[in-house]
Amino acid sequence: MTYCVGLKIDRGLVFMSDTRTNAGIDSISTFRKMHVWEEPGERVIVLMSAGNLATTQSVISMLDERTKAVSERAPTLLEMPSMYQTARLVGGVVKDVIANSAPVGQKADSYFNASFILGGQIKGTEPRLFMIYPEGNFIESSDDTPFFQVGETKYGKPIIVRTYDKAMSFAETVKLLLVSFDSTLKSNLSVGLPLDLLFYQKDAFKVGMKKRIAQDDPYYRTISDGWSNALKQAFKALPDFPES
Amino acid sequence: MTYCVGLKIDRGLVFMSDTRTNAGIDSISTFRKMHVWEEPGERVIVLMSAGNLATTQSVISMLDERTKAVSERAPTLLEMPSMYQTARLVGGVVKDVIANSAPVGQKADSYFNASFILGGQIKGTEPRLFMIYPEGNFIESSDDTPFFQVGETKYGKPIIVRTYDKAMSFAETVKLLLVSFDSTLKSNLSVGLPLDLLFYQKDAFKVGMKKRIAQDDPYYRTISDGWSNALKQAFKALPDFPES
Repeated sequence: MTYCVGLKIDRGLVFMSDTRTNAGIDSISTFRKMHVWEEPGERVIVLMSAGNLATTQSVISMLDERTKAVSERAPTLLEMPSMYQTARLVGGVVKDVIANSAPVGQKADSYFNASFILGGQIKGTEPRLFMIYPEGNFIESSDDTPFFQVGETKYGKPIIVRTYDKAMSFAETVKLLLVSFDSTLKSNLSVGLPLDLLFYQKDAFKVGMKKRIAQDDPYYRTISDGWSNALKQAFKALPDFPES
Repeated sequence: MTYCVGLKIDRGLVFMSDTRTNAGIDSISTFRKMHVWEEPGERVIVLMSAGNLATTQSVISMLDERTKAVSERAPTLLEMPSMYQTARLVGGVVKDVIANSAPVGQKADSYFNASFILGGQIKGTEPRLFMIYPEGNFIESSDDTPFFQVGETKYGKPIIVRTYDKAMSFAETVKLLLVSFDSTLKSNLSVGLPLDLLFYQKDAFKVGMKKRIAQDDPYYRTISDGWSNALKQAFKALPDFPES
């Protein structure tokens, strides 16, 4: 499995993904699940993937136009007039790749399935965030649902539901995502370090920060240990059940 | 879906289950998922179920011997010499009921599936806790894994993993379970109030406390609101991501 979260805040977009892939419990590897296309001053596009690795790698390769010679590549992805068109393009590629893998046409429940979180901004438009389904269709985030998760989403959802605030700073949002990822890492072996973090500041039209967070990252250690302790303290501070 | 947790502590056993069942999102009902058989001074047996309601109700009815006239019922369940034998009996009934529902023999992935948490104590033996699978086989809790969850287990797992301590009092354990259930309730519509709570004190051979916790339960409100606030405080207290 996988765990990826894309989150929209007033100041921009924040993305985090793990890097573990597994084909059975005895076949574990590390692969990047966060992919970025950038045209400084013009657009930034981030795509995170969960699901069948052959499918997700194919989709990325197709979007990169790796079927062409290196000199001839000019990804159509970077020519779309809007993020909505970008999502349509990605959705179409996803659908094609899955259809080509399935032996007799696409099945919604196929093992070749993959889901994607797409976010970014194109000059002249607002930052936007989408979730793209294996069927190629997609939904966009809104004020009511300002974040998307793919993969092992459940362990880390309660903390996001409880503490998200669209006025958050990037620094706070990264903290929130690390807590959410740490809860997931502690509960599920199929999600693993290192983590990829990216944030994009609204109207910057370039990647704000991109960082790989490994086991020994001092801030990650602070959050992981600190959150365990903080939870225990918070738990202790609540009144016990009145037995009588 | 469902959410049930059975937890073993030094002082005994604690059980909590929700009461929501749904057959599609537009067909929601409330059913008790916690069932108790008690022979004061002799044994206490608690069974919680998740899965197909027809299956789980059949299993309970069979164990209650409801195929017989009321006057002739003397549940075999109350005559087993050990909790291990009790788990075998329940597992056998589960397997039979599922096999009878499936059109052409049992499939592991059947829609008629159900899982159970069984716990209790019989005079002369220790309190024991089991998890029973749809196939009828089962596992027992240990010091390493002192709790079992069935149903929507993921949202509420991190807090149990982090704060469980076998030396906990009943009052603290109930607090822990309520926090775990509250996280699940806030994240998943298929788990719903009221909750059933039961605790069994080691060597008491009678139910210690059995209570239904509804939306307006003052202690539940305290925990639900208090935990949200405590989490926010704990989160605030952690250092933000150093952006530089």
